[in-house]
Amino acid sequence: MRTGLGIDSHRFAEGRRLVLGGVEIPHGRGLDGHSDADVLAHAITDAILGAAAMGDIGQHFPDTDSAFKDADSIVLLREAVARVTAEGWRVEFVDATVMMERPKLAPHRAAIMATLSEAVGADVHVKATTGERMGFVGREEGVAALAVATLDRG
Amino acid sequence: MRTGLGIDSHRFAEGRRLVLGGVEIPHGRGLDGHSDADVLAHAITDAILGAAAMGDIGQHFPDTDSAFKDADSIVLLREAVARVTAEGWRVEFVDATVMMERPKLAPHRAAIMATLSEAVGADVHVKATTGERMGFVGREEGVAALAVATLDRG
Amino acid sequence: MRTGLGIDSHRFAEGRRLVLGGVEIPHGRGLDGHSDADVLAHAITDAILGAAAMGDIGQHFPDTDSAFKDADSIVLLREAVARVTAEGWRVEFVDATVMMERPKLAPHRAAIMATLSEAVGADVHVKATTGERMGFVGREEGVAALAVATLDRG
Ligand SMILES: [Mg+2]
Ligand SMILES: [Mg+2]
Ligand SMILES: [Mg+2]
Repeated sequence: MRTGLGIDSHRFAEGRRLVLGGVEIPHGRGLDGHSDADVLAHAITDAILGAAAMGDIGQHFPDTDSAFKDADSIVLLREAVARVTAEGWRVEFVDATVMMERPKLAPHRAAIMATLSEAVGADVHVKATTGERMGFVGREEGVAALAVATLDRG
Repeated sequence: MRTGLGIDSHRFAEGRRLVLGGVEIPHGRGLDGHSDADVLAHAITDAILGAAAMGDIGQHFPDTDSAFKDADSIVLLREAVARVTAEGWRVEFVDATVMMERPKLAPHRAAIMATLSEAVGADVHVKATTGERMGFVGREEGVAALAVATLDRG
Repeated sequence: MRTGLGIDSHRFAEGRRLVLGGVEIPHGRGLDGHSDADVLAHAITDAILGAAAMGDIGQHFPDTDSAFKDADSIVLLREAVARVTAEGWRVEFVDATVMMERPKLAPHRAAIMATLSEAVGADVHVKATTGERMGFVGREEGVAALAVATLDRG
């Protein structure tokens, strides 16, 4: 049994959707990136790959590959779990925190956890905090996410 | 056995106390927040609730609730541990890091760890680092804390 | 079995080497600090000491001690592992993420993981992410690293 970690951030941009944990959240703007910029799914993917010592999201799904342009990050997460499982690992649990000044995550938390837990095939728990008006999160320049994954051998 | 994480930050403000891990630290100013703004106790509370998949500090102790105005965060931490224990979890260990430019945490570390360990009913370990004059921590705008909690069933 | 965490940051400076995980990376400038400023080795050292509840890198190797001036942080990491082992702990696994805008870590990742794994005596896994042009990482003021260590008794 062992723990892996994931951290990711994406910048707010006009004309983009805000997708967190596979759930689209109504907001004036969204997150920029090659894929759908789902910062929460990315941090979780990295935590799972990390615990299995199997590289990171950038190695598995390069943002220079047009196949992943506007990709649904939940599909990538599902594929990462499949690759980790194929190597004999089982995801036991994932805990994550979204760092976002606005909008409120609370109304979407249950849907996000259900989507992520289904994709991972294990309990994925999601918390929220703000940047208290400090740093790039607090200035609403972007959103960050942090995750830890507990994995065990098959 | 599984790992949860917690991250929190609070902003420095004049006329406030600086309370970290339940210990008041002499300093020209303190941290702002609805409760006593004990950023370390908050990160640990979130790590413990997170590992148990039982929500976060904002859900359990809403800052819109006047009951938690100027609350002692050690009391909230103790209550969070009671709720997690009531669901069959046992906190095995907590490790945390305080990110603070000034003042030095070292002279208060033993008292902080004793207070937190007593409240949690398990070994709570606390480390310190600075922001190396970078970011909101390095500019002394505020303090951040990060924690991981290891929990097991009963 | 339990999890510890480590976080560290160092500021870029002219005329310094960029050393990450014991590997010197060609770049116009490097990281500033009392030792070789190996931010990745430092985060990992803190995660290992943290999981063992044995203090932090600043307590074991004070930057006020001239013995550690320009120190090779891999030597310090090796010594921290020896101290933790002497107390009956075994490092099972370490997962870490380097947060750096430039240069790319990818070409050096295998060498870094080999160096760190040899020093720790266990599998050390390293991932990379950028700051997406946000915060002190995104503005290329410095580099941060985050690590979690899984430890077990002898
Ligand atoms: Mg990403
Ligand atoms: Mg707080
Ligand atoms: Mg350092």
